[in-house]
Amino acid sequence: MTKSDLTIVKIGGNIIADDVKLKGTLQRFSSIVGPKILVHGGGKMATEIESKLGIKSEKFEGRRITSAPSLDVMVMVYAGLINKRIVAGLQAHNCNAIGLSGADGGSILAHKRPVDGIDFGYVGDIDRIGNKVVTDLLHAGLSPVFCALTHDGNGQIFNTNADTIASELAISLSASFKTNLYYCFEKKGVLSDINDEDSVIRKIDRETYSRLLTEDLISDGMLPKLHTCFKALESEVSRIFIGNESMLSDKSGMYTEISL
Amino acid sequence: MTKSDLTIVKIGGNIIADDVKLKGTLQRFSSIVGPKILVHGGGKMATEIESKLGIKSEKFEGRRITSAPSLDVMVMVYAGLINKRIVAGLQAHNCNAIGLSGADGGSILAHKRPVDGIDFGYVGDIDRIGNKVVTDLLHAGLSPVFCALTHDGNGQIFNTNADTIASELAISLSASFKTNLYYCFEKKGVLSDINDEDSVIRKIDRETYSRLLTEDLISDGMLPKLHTCFKALESEVSRIFIGNESMLSDKSGMYTEISL
Repeated sequence: MTKSDLTIVKIGGNIIADDVKLKGTLQRFSSIVGPKILVHGGGKMATEIESKLGIKSEKFEGRRITSAPSLDVMVMVYAGLINKRIVAGLQAHNCNAIGLSGADGGSILAHKRPVDGIDFGYVGDIDRIGNKVVTDLLHAGLSPVFCALTHDGNGQIFNTNADTIASELAISLSASFKTNLYYCFEKKGVLSDINDEDSVIRKIDRETYSRLLTEDLISDGMLPKLHTCFKALESEVSRIFIGNESMLSDKSGMYTEISL
Repeated sequence: MTKSDLTIVKIGGNIIADDVKLKGTLQRFSSIVGPKILVHGGGKMATEIESKLGIKSEKFEGRRITSAPSLDVMVMVYAGLINKRIVAGLQAHNCNAIGLSGADGGSILAHKRPVDGIDFGYVGDIDRIGNKVVTDLLHAGLSPVFCALTHDGNGQIFNTNADTIASELAISLSASFKTNLYYCFEKKGVLSDINDEDSVIRKIDRETYSRLLTEDLISDGMLPKLHTCFKALESEVSRIFIGNESMLSDKSGMYTEISL
């Protein structure tokens, strides 16, 4: 049996924080034919609300720790403010969106990241995607919209990286679908020169990746994303693209495709 | 064809704010056999966060106005903090809960309450329940958990009374189910003497209701709830109960049943 296509789109914080960009992105997402899933972050907005509430972001050697008050803010901002803004926006474009955290429908099971030098607090590493519930929603004509939260099945919610959620969804759902994963952010793609917006590298395969690493041409923020992409491609994910929102509806423009 | 039972439970703000009470209520809800829906408010917690964020609750002649910043807080607290706490809590009791605002799945369509002397701001009056999506979720073995938010289908979210959401869900779903509606709060039922916790009126029918009204025995907070109950019973809702969480698992205790 040939598998049908499933589109998974992850949108980053800079799109979410920009009303015009968000609207355009939601419109393009709505126009995608067939089953589709949206995954969003929102750390920037959570940090804003935290500072308004007088909660200090805890850090250890520059890496963020999720304290209990921080987690509450993330739950409010990710699952509340941002998720519902996106869902209502998609509904306005006739996309039957349904917002989910990983607790909803038991869709993403995780465990607390083990303490190994650093205790990251309420950060969860993913154990398992609830394929059945996600597939049931897709078959009912719904488009799941995931925020960056998971749970342990015992009542604890965790903060989990949205890029990782998108790739784990893509990997797990590749059992039933031909999954295409889009990492959508404010740039046109992976750039060879961070100061030149048009220096988009059109294709990155393992060989290009090694060369870019050797020449130290990849920005720190892009490194874990590319690492996640190769892991996903090795785990049956069909195609992966990195670029801005225009790649969702226009395949003739610039973007980066990651391939093995 | 005989309709199968559907249980709809609305839980009030005083249960949500009390960790022990909330836990007990979620455990009892989880033990209910067959399809079930939970509806929750949370105004108290929203007011707390509002004051922490320095947002003033606007009022007109003692009645609350939902301003744009207030609505944002409601979306954060209702759909985020409270809804996900409840969903994760139910998942821990093996109840496959899925949290929803009225925007999710287009499940509750509403319009802005018309300005008639008072402009209530972003308060929505319900037009239509999305029976199909709610029924699809129930048939997939999921228990929807609704917060007190609706949408207009054009991207606008509204604050809508949770009692009303519960009764409108019960009315609309009575087309396919025999619906039993439970209004669950901190008291044992409707009291004839507000100072006596055990003065529970076991049954309130239209006649009792008129007598209670004449004798001015019903508290101001209970009046709209009872009005909503009679409207629901006239619209095919099967049975309606008011009491504390123990009525969810123990029918031998005290509670009030409303009947025509």
